[in-house]
Amino acid sequence: MTLSPFDHPFLSGLFGDAEIASLFSAEADIAAMIRFERALALAEADCGILAVDIAETIDAALGTFVPDMAALADGMARDGVVVPGFIRQMRAAVGGVAAEKVHFGATSQDVIDTSLVLRLKVANDIIQARLDALIGDLDGLLERDGDKLLMAHTRMQAAIEIKAADRIGAWRSPLERTRSRLAHFAVDGFALQFGGAAGTLERFGDDGPALRAALAARLGLHDQAQWHSQRDMITEFGGLLSLVTGSLGKIGQDISLLAEAGAEISLAGGGGSSAMPHKQNPVAAELLVTLARFNATQVSALHQSLVHEQERSGAAWMLEWMTLPPTVLATASALRTARRLLGDVRRIGREPEECGGHHT
Amino acid sequence: MTLSPFDHPFLSGLFGDAEIASLFSAEADIAAMIRFERALALAEADCGILAVDIAETIDAALGTFVPDMAALADGMARDGVVVPGFIRQMRAAVGGVAAEKVHFGATSQDVIDTSLVLRLKVANDIIQARLDALIGDLDGLLERDGDKLLMAHTRMQAAIEIKAADRIGAWRSPLERTRSRLAHFAVDGFALQFGGAAGTLERFGDDGPALRAALAARLGLHDQAQWHSQRDMITEFGGLLSLVTGSLGKIGQDISLLAEAGAEISLAGGGGSSAMPHKQNPVAAELLVTLARFNATQVSALHQSLVHEQERSGAAWMLEWMTLPPTVLATASALRTARRLLGDVRRIGREPEECGGHHT
Amino acid sequence: MTLSPFDHPFLSGLFGDAEIASLFSAEADIAAMIRFERALALAEADCGILAVDIAETIDAALGTFVPDMAALADGMARDGVVVPGFIRQMRAAVGGVAAEKVHFGATSQDVIDTSLVLRLKVANDIIQARLDALIGDLDGLLERDGDKLLMAHTRMQAAIEIKAADRIGAWRSPLERTRSRLAHFAVDGFALQFGGAAGTLERFGDDGPALRAALAARLGLHDQAQWHSQRDMITEFGGLLSLVTGSLGKIGQDISLLAEAGAEISLAGGGGSSAMPHKQNPVAAELLVTLARFNATQVSALHQSLVHEQERSGAAWMLEWMTLPPTVLATASALRTARRLLGDVRRIGREPEECGGHHT
Amino acid sequence: MTLSPFDHPFLSGLFGDAEIASLFSAEADIAAMIRFERALALAEADCGILAVDIAETIDAALGTFVPDMAALADGMARDGVVVPGFIRQMRAAVGGVAAEKVHFGATSQDVIDTSLVLRLKVANDIIQARLDALIGDLDGLLERDGDKLLMAHTRMQAAIEIKAADRIGAWRSPLERTRSRLAHFAVDGFALQFGGAAGTLERFGDDGPALRAALAARLGLHDQAQWHSQRDMITEFGGLLSLVTGSLGKIGQDISLLAEAGAEISLAGGGGSSAMPHKQNPVAAELLVTLARFNATQVSALHQSLVHEQERSGAAWMLEWMTLPPTVLATASALRTARRLLGDVRRIGREPEECGGHHT
Repeated sequence: MTLSPFDHPFLSGLFGDAEIASLFSAEADIAAMIRFERALALAEADCGILAVDIAETIDAALGTFVPDMAALADGMARDGVVVPGFIRQMRAAVGGVAAEKVHFGATSQDVIDTSLVLRLKVANDIIQARLDALIGDLDGLLERDGDKLLMAHTRMQAAIEIKAADRIGAWRSPLERTRSRLAHFAVDGFALQFGGAAGTLERFGDDGPALRAALAARLGLHDQAQWHSQRDMITEFGGLLSLVTGSLGKIGQDISLLAEAGAEISLAGGGGSSAMPHKQNPVAAELLVTLARFNATQVSALHQSLVHEQERSGAAWMLEWMTLPPTVLATASALRTARRLLGDVRRIGREPEECGGHHT
Repeated sequence: MTLSPFDHPFLSGLFGDAEIASLFSAEADIAAMIRFERALALAEADCGILAVDIAETIDAALGTFVPDMAALADGMARDGVVVPGFIRQMRAAVGGVAAEKVHFGATSQDVIDTSLVLRLKVANDIIQARLDALIGDLDGLLERDGDKLLMAHTRMQAAIEIKAADRIGAWRSPLERTRSRLAHFAVDGFALQFGGAAGTLERFGDDGPALRAALAARLGLHDQAQWHSQRDMITEFGGLLSLVTGSLGKIGQDISLLAEAGAEISLAGGGGSSAMPHKQNPVAAELLVTLARFNATQVSALHQSLVHEQERSGAAWMLEWMTLPPTVLATASALRTARRLLGDVRRIGREPEECGGHHT
Repeated sequence: MTLSPFDHPFLSGLFGDAEIASLFSAEADIAAMIRFERALALAEADCGILAVDIAETIDAALGTFVPDMAALADGMARDGVVVPGFIRQMRAAVGGVAAEKVHFGATSQDVIDTSLVLRLKVANDIIQARLDALIGDLDGLLERDGDKLLMAHTRMQAAIEIKAADRIGAWRSPLERTRSRLAHFAVDGFALQFGGAAGTLERFGDDGPALRAALAARLGLHDQAQWHSQRDMITEFGGLLSLVTGSLGKIGQDISLLAEAGAEISLAGGGGSSAMPHKQNPVAAELLVTLARFNATQVSALHQSLVHEQERSGAAWMLEWMTLPPTVLATASALRTARRLLGDVRRIGREPEECGGHHT
Repeated sequence: MTLSPFDHPFLSGLFGDAEIASLFSAEADIAAMIRFERALALAEADCGILAVDIAETIDAALGTFVPDMAALADGMARDGVVVPGFIRQMRAAVGGVAAEKVHFGATSQDVIDTSLVLRLKVANDIIQARLDALIGDLDGLLERDGDKLLMAHTRMQAAIEIKAADRIGAWRSPLERTRSRLAHFAVDGFALQFGGAAGTLERFGDDGPALRAALAARLGLHDQAQWHSQRDMITEFGGLLSLVTGSLGKIGQDISLLAEAGAEISLAGGGGSSAMPHKQNPVAAELLVTLARFNATQVSALHQSLVHEQERSGAAWMLEWMTLPPTVLATASALRTARRLLGDVRRIGREPEECGGHHT
């Protein structure tokens, strides 16, 4: 069973995006959690909290550790988080005196949130690269078709003639702004979560901040005081992604409307119909609208989850688990789809000469 | 890769529900689509539209048909719906003169929407049965603990003493009402979608309505004129499911608060912590809140998809695909979780004698 | 200052609906709260709980009572509900021995929720009547234009020719279903809320249920056990309203698209432009889409408020106050707008002869 | 009638915020629209597009212009925007040869969007100042109570003891981050909208950009190419506001939970009950949760409105009108409420000595 459209056996043909989906697989999550635990042991050795040989034993053993997935699912059912069972398995794999030092001073949320951030950071790199490429595609359209004529429409009525460049520019500018927003976010938005049981790193005394800095450096994440009950960065990131899909949704809606009217666009490809084989449905354009409205919905759940009570709200946290990954996937899928759609645009606008010389 | 928490390798330990999830697998969708095509051929024979032997050939061939899933995904990518490629595969499997009669007079949306409704109907049966069982669980609590005392709280402040029966009754009543709502919905809410290319059954002339009735009868669905661009029944059903999860979310919130205060509830089970092994986290109670807020979010997307332009909106339709199945799964999962949680309630309320006789 | 578009000095020209807006004014709320308190006193006399002359004194005094609005606002700021200050004012107005019997055995939520339901019931009557009238308008269109031809569009592409009746019928059916839904809801959906401090009518002993029935009868509401922490009926009603606006949003979207293409509809009226005086903007059609998407958003808040903790959640309750009245207003406004829009449709579809026999 | 809780006759006692509400009154909108038209005339004179005396005539006449509000409402009903009727009134007020130069080269959306941005900019200044003050309040709490002890709770269960400073710090950090976000946004987020009929400033030829820069300078707004169909800045701003309310909602939820448990907080004030005069309801804390969930809902509508088709979508634009002002008001109201609530905190946490060494 595979229920998400992003990795569904056939829906994924349209919605799917293997590159990003792989970041949100259980395997990728586990790999990132192991990376956290290895780096933690090594950072604790860096700071003199663990003996170096203990840390190296942990690092080596976890380097080849493969968890028993069914046992993890059982633990999940029992504990509501995967980490306690996961730690038990890791400790068994490490064995000996080092075993009890695995995960020393950390808590479930440290592992899970940091695993998420490690993968969001990679996702953001991919998304930014796709945004760059898409902006490049739009630049190509601008160069090829920018001087063609297009009937502007305001409030669903023909207004005055503009150039294709005006419309394409209105598609491009918000993407460029959001690329800047994502770059600005990335400066310090992907931060290590490390706080221990209640966020105070109480097992480390005065060494807490130095250890946290060492761990952040090893993981390539921003060093920041624990944020386990402060979900603003997660929500902000989800909101930025929805700005991407919303802006792409406008492109999709515009192209759907151009395709319906017919004269001002020429599209290759397009979906077939089981009843009317002659039709060329602008499926990719529609999908952009769908993904925009999907993320516009999910963003509400992320904002709801800001009401994260006390030191850790299982309820609010699990709501993120259910809605943030699909938001990332929808964004990546939309970017991929937009590039495919723009690649299928053979022409946008009409040649100036088609209109005669009497139209000013 | 398996991205949905409902069938994720380890998250499903908590969120998953195999019985319902199986209804939304690609395999179940395909099985229901095949069921539609077989019933269509037989109903067309019933009405003298197809020769009986043609229909029987189709029925027999599709009875053993197994699609090539990778080819379906390719078709999905190309057409935006799986049906054109699916029909091609079915026609190849049927072969001969009958091949071209597969799917005769139907369109993609007929197959996809009817497949959905066939499975929603089964899901509703399961959900109603679980509601019944859950109401029975609450009756058991009422009988066992109803006379115990509970401090009522209004606006997060202790108010006056009530009986546990008052609180449990406030949990029970909305579930009973929603069970009635679902039963009322089921009278005619699970309706065949059958309209052909643009909803007019234009290939069948005056025989359209009779054929539709025959097909509905064969599929055990309500006979209703096409509703392909009328998504009110889908949205209403999603809303009813969110009434279920919202009512269960209240139970979860109440039990979380009782568990935090501690004296008025005794809970078996509860999740462990990787940092504090002594804790018993009311994970199931929190999950009920999560699933309530998740569905409260998705319901917005379903209502957005009511703006379903013209005869078929790919954009609005795909938004349903992305949000309705998770809504159903969250509902079933919440019911299962609520039953587990109530089963873990060892006691709710305090014995009257604990309070002495001086508390009025 | 008047911030809501529904009663804004100039936005109300488009959005406003005086008939419904008046139901949600402070004055209407106060009138309904006074009605509750008068009926409560009389019902308590019916049941022998209050002396008849006390009840009549209360009834008479409240019949002419006009509250000091500024003092109510001060009380609201202090108490978070208007009722304590409101009761103080009413008791001062009643005076004498009867004063302390005002509001006897009731709590704030009884007054506020019942005031809401009294007004929702009237709103529902108006909405149902407008739905009837709108369905009648559609019947008129069907009769006048039903046989005209219309190009069906699926996935934003021309499909095959249908009759205008097919499109108009697809607009009409969900409205008819939702009219039935509202009628079904009205059977027992508008229920008295009466429970006292924590829902147990603890001040009345065994007389509680009889008193509640008497009060319900006096107010013309369904008699039902207290539902103060059970918000499913409120949420269900909001969802039904959003089914109305969603179905009207589809009509608006379809008419916008017809108006953009131009040939298959003739519209009188339409909004002017400050830059392009020649334009006829289909403003009413756009507004239907807006109101659909507005309600599709608010419905999420209503479902969130189902997580109504303990015996009374101020947080969840106030969220209803912020979102349910605008939902009702948007629905009434959409119905009014839809009637205006359909009244402006001079023709929908093309005459059959316009197409000749040569359609390719 | 006054339907919004923010300016309702008595609900405003709790929800209201006169300072911010005044920015969203019809009068403030009109004043800002007049400011736009005066600055436009003067900027056109700066650029040699209008004669200086014409511009001065317009500027002077509009300086004393008071519109006929009822006529504006009529125009709104007719045109779907207030601007055409507003321009007619202004031209009548200006009279003579200058009349026709009022609004020269601009379109409705230029006036309306710029009026909005002028007021959002002031709102943002107020919101940032309140954030500063609130952070100062938290600093005061930190200084006074930071060393007190608090039982950390994770997943609604007591975890380990932390200091009050840990909790207060978790409230403070996201507010500080969002203050930075708003400051970063303000650098170029409040941009003039000026594009003419379809965004191309087609009436000004090569002078368009210089005129736009001159107009932006006169209005104190960022100079940016037209963004009338690019709503990302509006949506981003709404999202940032919802980060504010979400972070305040967490504070409200935490204080509600502290107040329910009772021992670790001492609160002055709190709302009264009509049934239980002894209660002290933490109304302000609850209101913060309400406002967080309200904005978390509205933010979805703003993201939906990113799908803004073609050069101007009436449907998407009006959806902003309905949801952005309430979002701003809820944010300002939440900040005011949070300051009031924190001012009522007499103590947070327990004295270290209270715990002794005998913690059970």
